[in-house]
Parts: sequence; structure tokens; C-alpha cells
Amino acid sequence: MQSFEIDKTDITKIKEALLQDDNALKSLLSEYHASEIAILFENLNAEEKVRIINLLSIEMASDVLSEMDEESDPATLLYNLEPEKRAEIVEDLNYDDATDILSQLDEEDQSEILDDLNIEDASSIRNLLKYADDTAGGLMNTQFIKVELGMTKKNAIDEIIRQSEEIEEFYTVFVVDEFNTFKGIISLKDIIKAKVNTPIVDLVKPDAVYVYSNTDQEEVAKLIAQYNITSIPVLDEDNKLLGRVTFDDVIDVLEEENTEDILKISGVSEDEELSGNWIEAVKSRLPWLIVNLATAFLAAFVVRYYESTIEQLSIISAYMVVIAGMGGNAATQALAVTVRRISLFDLTDKQAYKTVLKEFSVGLINGAVIGLIVLGFALYFDGNPMLGIVIFLAMTGNMVIAGITGSGIPLLLKRIGIDPAIASSIIISTFTDVFGFLLLLGLASKLLL
Amino acid sequence: MQSFEIDKTDITKIKEALLQDDNALKSLLSEYHASEIAILFENLNAEEKVRIINLLSIEMASDVLSEMDEESDPATLLYNLEPEKRAEIVEDLNYDDATDILSQLDEEDQSEILDDLNIEDASSIRNLLKYADDTAGGLMNTQFIKVELGMTKKNAIDEIIRQSEEIEEFYTVFVVDEFNTFKGIISLKDIIKAKVNTPIVDLVKPDAVYVYSNTDQEEVAKLIAQYNITSIPVLDEDNKLLGRVTFDDVIDVLEEENTEDILKISGVSEDEELSGNWIEAVKSRLPWLIVNLATAFLAAFVVRYYESTIEQLSIISAYMVVIAGMGGNAATQALAVTVRRISLFDLTDKQAYKTVLKEFSVGLINGAVIGLIVLGFALYFDGNPMLGIVIFLAMTGNMVIAGITGSGIPLLLKRIGIDPAIASSIIISTFTDVFGFLLLLGLASKLLL
Repeated sequence: MQSFEIDKTDITKIKEALLQDDNALKSLLSEYHASEIAILFENLNAEEKVRIINLLSIEMASDVLSEMDEESDPATLLYNLEPEKRAEIVEDLNYDDATDILSQLDEEDQSEILDDLNIEDASSIRNLLKYADDTAGGLMNTQFIKVELGMTKKNAIDEIIRQSEEIEEFYTVFVVDEFNTFKGIISLKDIIKAKVNTPIVDLVKPDAVYVYSNTDQEEVAKLIAQYNITSIPVLDEDNKLLGRVTFDDVIDVLEEENTEDILKISGVSEDEELSGNWIEAVKSRLPWLIVNLATAFLAAFVVRYYESTIEQLSIISAYMVVIAGMGGNAATQALAVTVRRISLFDLTDKQAYKTVLKEFSVGLINGAVIGLIVLGFALYFDGNPMLGIVIFLAMTGNMVIAGITGSGIPLLLKRIGIDPAIASSIIISTFTDVFGFLLLLGLASKLLL
Repeated sequence: MQSFEIDKTDITKIKEALLQDDNALKSLLSEYHASEIAILFENLNAEEKVRIINLLSIEMASDVLSEMDEESDPATLLYNLEPEKRAEIVEDLNYDDATDILSQLDEEDQSEILDDLNIEDASSIRNLLKYADDTAGGLMNTQFIKVELGMTKKNAIDEIIRQSEEIEEFYTVFVVDEFNTFKGIISLKDIIKAKVNTPIVDLVKPDAVYVYSNTDQEEVAKLIAQYNITSIPVLDEDNKLLGRVTFDDVIDVLEEENTEDILKISGVSEDEELSGNWIEAVKSRLPWLIVNLATAFLAAFVVRYYESTIEQLSIISAYMVVIAGMGGNAATQALAVTVRRISLFDLTDKQAYKTVLKEFSVGLINGAVIGLIVLGFALYFDGNPMLGIVIFLAMTGNMVIAGITGSGIPLLLKRIGIDPAIASSIIISTFTDVFGFLLLLGLASKLLL
């Protein structure tokens, strides 16, 4: 199969097949990978989705459900299926995927589904549901391959083959002692290459990276990315092996964290669902807008304070717009670069100081260049050199303030342990509005009236 | 080894060790993983880095170089080493990592290094240097495990063991026919589980996902994330197997694309280095600021047009500030949600239409609420009901425009094949500035004068 994207033709085809009998629909579905059906589902209604799930094999159905985005609500789809079908699908799911899906339902609905499962699966999933969503425990899968330190290669291979019946894919074998204490990892490659009687203790890499069940998911993602590993073991407080987080979970975490960063930096509540409806969007954004209104009033107060200046020199209000706009832009630029840098690297204090210094210089140069252009404009259109000088000074000053606040405020927030992305472009541009107006109108009232 | 972060203590320790003899330094270095030394390098000067590399084993040195960020400039460090050391390190690197590092040097310096290598490594790396950086060819590694369709499990295992001497890590075995045409994949797990004489043709999964050498890196990353695979085969136009891209490369690509998105949406040129100096930052941002200056002048023209309105009613300039600010904020919110949604999902036309409709509703509600608050404010402070109504109408209208442009413009850009993130918050807020002033000042001149 070549790289494949779901396009309009596919949606049309499936819609047509949905009008026909089950056999026609089934034969069309067999052409798609589970992750493709999950994408197609975004265009179908609840009834259509249930019909398709019922036509798929249990294995395929569980794959489709695990591939559906949280936004497409696989939990409701699952809940809408016949109890027997539902139980079979959940039993076929990896525990971590089952937990992810069930955690979107309320406790009563969760119990209704879990009560139909075999005891082992039900208790494993119930156990996983206890961990917080955004921790290693919440991400981990409790199905993995482990061998004991005392085995030889031959026993270990038999053990791996036995355990792998239950497990879809694995790349690393975990090693524990007889008390299930984590002792290290072995790569499949090393096991294959070893001679038949090699003791596992000679093959194990004891310095493997691991995390605890309460480790934050962002930290887990960073470690997997930093050490280039396919899975990371998750331990309890006594170093007993609980499960593993795999690289594919981490890709999802990274996308999620990046979405949160982009939303926060733009003054949207981080938990707004991207495909939520307008009511949810209003709930998520209105509180921020009201906060921003308070900050906008601050800038308005500065303007009111200089009302008589504006009355005598109404042309200044056009330049107010330019200076506030450009200051906001420059601050947004500095903020984006700084927030992204903080999120990818751990900056030392010296690096933080250098960053603010750099943004100061950038603001000074960019401000002077932009200020000169606007000065030229003021000379040409308004023929007033003093007005030009006031505008030049205000523009340069405001862009310097933009650089310092755009870089300094997120760094300061990080330093005191607050998420730096909260210093959204909206908050930052309040500073440039207030200072820009103070500079422009203050200088104008002194030098031009 | 537990989850590990480099902190100030580590930097102090290494700085102290650098003042002592090689043995002391060596023993400190042995406590660190290659990726940790790469992070420590960000705090050291060129001379110190060369000294440390020379103390490490070739294997460790090459690991450190491959773990260094492009920003930390591993290429210059490599180039500064003795020719012999340099050649040994490059020969030890994976071809893709060697290519990444060398591609940062100019052709002359590349040749100087490559001429010292053995012929096989030199020609493989020269070959990889031809592919564009941001394609599957530019990302791929040409070291991988392949077996032929005609083999049995036993031959295949022997072949895998032989080939794996050269390869650091692998999880999937590629299958080709006698002409090196790609035929599918086998997981190590399935090979281990198979009986000794099973023919490979019975084990191969023929419907594996693959890409071509010119496939865009973003597409490669999407496929690896969508299908949850550790590596994806890269083929030439005749379906011959050229190499593989692994999941760890994809994590880097995702971080890179996300950085670009955040920068572009904030009006920063996408190729600005996050840790670049102020000269680079000025070069990257000044052109955008000049574009934005042109758009700011648009808003200023509207204000100039209504100069006499402002002269007669100077209080309006304070409300101008509030309306422009809030419109910009609302537009930034709608833009961030829409750009992120486009980047994570492929929206159908119907979904695009619904998105704009949703943002219209959000703008209407949020605008009316914020408008009412400002109306109350105008009544209380300025005691002018008509002024209040003008402000209410302008605020609501501007927030509706913010919703429509903030969602509609990136969707339109996507539709005509332009990167939607280019519709930065800066461009979008021009619309809200211009329309906000037109509404407020236009209504004020009609209803209040």
C-alpha cells in the first residue's frame, strides 16, 4: 500500500456503499486500513458508524476505535454498540487504548461496559483508570514482554514467544528479577544474535532509562525523543515494573502539547477542543477576552489622560495606531521565538539573560529602521519635522519595550514555575500599547504643543 | 539510569573538571550519556568541546555529535578535529546522521572530510547529500536489514545476524526480490516466532506503507504517526529499496514543523534559528515588520480619513484603542484554533464551511457580551447613550469580522495550496484594525456629530 490519504472520492464511495447492502459495504471496507476508516468516520453519523463497526471483524473494529481521535468520540461509539460486541472489542484492545477510550465516559457507563468483560481484563483496565491522564501511568500499556535475569537465551526466547501471543508489537524486552524489580532491557536484536546458552544477565543493558508512574507525560515524551528509544519502562515507587510507554503515544503527546502551546500563546484556553462547537468556544475564549478587556482599558486610560493633546493635534491618532500595531507585532515575534525556545531547550540563567539582551538589540535596530520610515512619512505628508522626531523616538522606544517584555516575561514566568506560554501575545501587547501611547502622547504633549 | 536532566550542578562540575587533567575529566565524562554531553556542550566554547571529543571513544564521540542540535553546530566542531579523528568519527556515524552534519558545511569543507574516508562510506554519504533536506531521501538512513523473498527463516536469521553487525538498532526487516524491488516487511517478532523452515514469502506483510525519496518530510512524519510504525521504507521511482526513515527522525521533524507553525503564525520568518544572534533575528523579522508597516498604514489611513470626527470627539480615540485591541485578540484566537486544526486534520469543504460559521457565531456572542460591557462603561464615564450604542455596534461587528477572517483566511489559503500559517496574527489583525476603525468612526460621524 502506498502512502495514502482519505479524500473526497473515498467519502463519496463510502456514502454510496452505505445505501447498499452489507456485502457491498463490507467489500469496500476491506480496501481500507483501520486508521483510514477512523478518518472516514469523521464524516459519518452515529448510526452509520455503528453499522460499519458491526460489519468489521472484532480485531479490525478495535483497531479503528483505537485510531479514532479523542475528538471523534470513540467512547460514545463504543457505548452505543451491543453489550456483547462491546465487550469483545474492549477485550481485544490494548489496555492503554481501552483505558483512554473508557476514561472519556462517566463512571456509571464505564462500569456498565467493564462488568461484561472477563475478570482479568476488567481489573487491569480498572487499575489503569486510576492514573492521571497526563502521567506515565495514564499513558502506559501493561502488556509487554519481560524475562527474568536468571534465564538463558533459550528459555528467554521460549518465554518471549509465549508472551508475544497476546501482544501486537514490541521491540524491546524488559528484564526483571524474581520480585519483578526492574533490572534493565535487552533488544530483540541482541537476543537473536546471542548463542543459545548465553545467560540473560550477560545480555541485559542495566543503564536503561525509566520513569515512574507519576512522571509527567511531557517529561516522558522528552526522554523518548532524547534517547531515541521505542519504549520506556514505567516503574512503581519500589522499582517494580508496571508497564511501558511506546513512541507512538509520545508522538500524540507532542502534538497535544504543541496544540496547547499554540492556543495559549494566542490567548485561547488550552483545553478548547479544536473541533468543539461554538458554545464550547465561547466558554473557552470569553473569559480570556474579558481579562484582555481589562488590559485594553489600561491603554485606553493612557489615551484619555492625553485627551487634550489629541484634541489639539488630532493627526496624532493615526500615528497612535501605527505605533501600537508595530509594537504589538514586534512583541509577538519576540514572544514566539522565546516561548518555543523555552519549550525545546532548558535555558540556563546566563542564556536567559543573553536572550533578553538579544531581543533588546533586535528591538532597537528594527525600531530605528521602522521609526525612520515613519519619520519620512510624517515629513512628506504632514511636513512637521518635530512630529517626525517624536514618532521616531516613540517607535524605537516601543519596539525596545516589545523585545524586552516579549522575551523577559515568558522567561520570568518559567523561572517562577509558571507555564511561559500563558504570557500570550495578547498580554504582551498590552505592554506595548500602554508604553507606546505613553511615549508618543507624552512626548507629543511636551514637544509639540 | 533514571530520567536525567542536565542542570547547573552538571555545568559547574564539567567546568571545574576542564581545569584539571585529562584523567579527572575523563572520569567525569564517563558518568554521562551521549545526549547529556550534547546538552552540556551548549555551555562550552569551541576549544573545550574539541578537548572533550578527543577524550571520548570514537563510538561515544560520534553519538555526541549526532545528538547535538543543528543549532549547536556539530559540523564546525567536527571540522575542527584532527583529520584522522574526524574520519574515524564520520565512519562510525550512521549515514543519515553523517549527512545531516556534513550538509551544514560548504562543499569544499565537505570534500576535505569525505576524502579521508574509506571509499564505501564516502560514496554512500556523497550520494545522500544529493537529496533535498526536507524529503524522505534527505532524512533516510541507507543502513537497514533486508532479506530476500526466496529465503527460509533459517537463512534469513543468519542474514539478519550478519547485517546487524553494522547497524545500531532496528525493529523491522525489509523484504526485497532478487532485483532489490521492495516486497514488504517482516517484524522481528514474527521471524522469531516462526518455525525454522518457514519460507519468508509466508511471513512477509506485503501491504506495508512506503514512501518515495522525494516525499515531503511532513508527509513521512504523518504516515509514521498515523500507522504507528518504527520505520518506513524509502523507494526510488522503480520501487527499488533505497533506505528507511525511523521514528526518532520523525519526532525531530514534528518539533521542527511545530516550531515553524508557531513562528509563522507570529509573523516571524520560519527559518529563524531559535538561538540565532541578533543580526540573524533582525534579518528574519525586519522584512515582515515592513510588510506589517504597510498594513498598519492602511488602518492609519482610515483614521486620517475621519480626522475631523476625532477632532470634534476626541474621546472616541480611547475607544478606538479598545475596539482595535479586542478585535485583534479575537482574530488571534480564531486563527490559532483554525491553523492548528488544519495542521492536524484534513478538513472537507463542508467542515471548512462549518468552521467559518462557528467562528461567526462565536464572534457574534463574544462581541455582544464585550460590547455590552464597554457600553456600560461609556454610559458610566461619558454619560452618552448614543456613544454607547455606536461602541456596542462597532465592537460586535469587529468581533464578527475577527471570527470570519481569523478562520476563513487560513482555510482559503489552504484551499489554494498556500501554507495557512502564513496568515499570521499580524496580517489578520490588520483586517480587524481597518474594519474596526471604519465601523466605529463611520458610525460615530453619522450618529454622533
